Amino acid sequence: MIDPEPMRLALRLAEEAMKMGEVPVGAVVVRGASVVAQAYNLRETLEDPTAHAERIALTLAGRALGTWRLDDCTLYVTLEPCVMCAGAIVLSRVKKLVYGAIDPKAGGCESLYRIVSDTRLNHRPEVEAGVLADECGAILKSFFQARRNRPKSVILGPFEEGCLSG
Amino acid sequence: MIDPEPMRLALRLAEEAMKMGEVPVGAVVVRGASVVAQAYNLRETLEDPTAHAERIALTLAGRALGTWRLDDCTLYVTLEPCVMCAGAIVLSRVKKLVYGAIDPKAGGCESLYRIVSDTRLNHRPEVEAGVLADECGAILKSFFQARRNRPKSVILGPFEEGCLSG
Repeated sequence: MIDPEPMRLALRLAEEAMKMGEVPVGAVVVRGASVVAQAYNLRETLEDPTAHAERIALTLAGRALGTWRLDDCTLYVTLEPCVMCAGAIVLSRVKKLVYGAIDPKAGGCESLYRIVSDTRLNHRPEVEAGVLADECGAILKSFFQARRNRPKSVILGPFEEGCLSG
Repeated sequence: MIDPEPMRLALRLAEEAMKMGEVPVGAVVVRGASVVAQAYNLRETLEDPTAHAERIALTLAGRALGTWRLDDCTLYVTLEPCVMCAGAIVLSRVKKLVYGAIDPKAGGCESLYRIVSDTRLNHRPEVEAGVLADECGAILKSFFQARRNRPKSVILGPFEEGCLSG
């Protein structure tokens, strides 16, 4: 039975990402009863192509625990990890991966690839998918909807510029 | 025709990694005639499961250029990128990936997967493999050979301990 509390925290982190104009994905690393790392997507803010929520959370968890081996940790993330993040999850040796919504276009855990259950790689975490999937998907849907609906940036010609400045 | 100079720099970075007891892999990001980022594997030192050479180089390149879109950059790395790094390369939109030695056990570009040429993902860099492959492979081979040959740590029982301290 999965405790939904860390996923609720990951959802709140996703909301923080949204406030910053970032694609709203949140991630939490838990060990026993402790949250050892929490992060959200910061790709635009950090200008870092690798700054996905779970990638940052794994980095921070290693720093917090003083080891890159996160054997006894569980990673919670609101969206199915992409190929990069699925690879990072295998490298980190986390015991368990819990995610919310599916990412049909880029998911590396069940959608495009099944990286985390590949027997050729040297670690396979337990996986639990679909936890609070509706809430996790809804925040992404509303982010992309708002982005599509925002007014196109107005390109001003000399006349219009004159109007505005006049 | 590939300029081998950035790969020679990546090899020197791999040597730096080895001096620090890290698996010797180096990476360089080049844009036009400029090196915009250089990094080596720092997994043990940073206690970060994601601190592979090319992952760090992509992060640093984004920081240097002020954007996560590395469209007009080439990434040079001494070893075939793993699944995580291959995913990061796609996310970063680098124009070109150049690598040296093949990684038959964990490579994500030709060995286990062909992530960087997957038409379902939203970017495919040009790829050139095998550049200075012998040198890139030799440094890894010598690192792992030295590691295998190092003396097993001596576990002292009470008697031996007495002998030594006497």
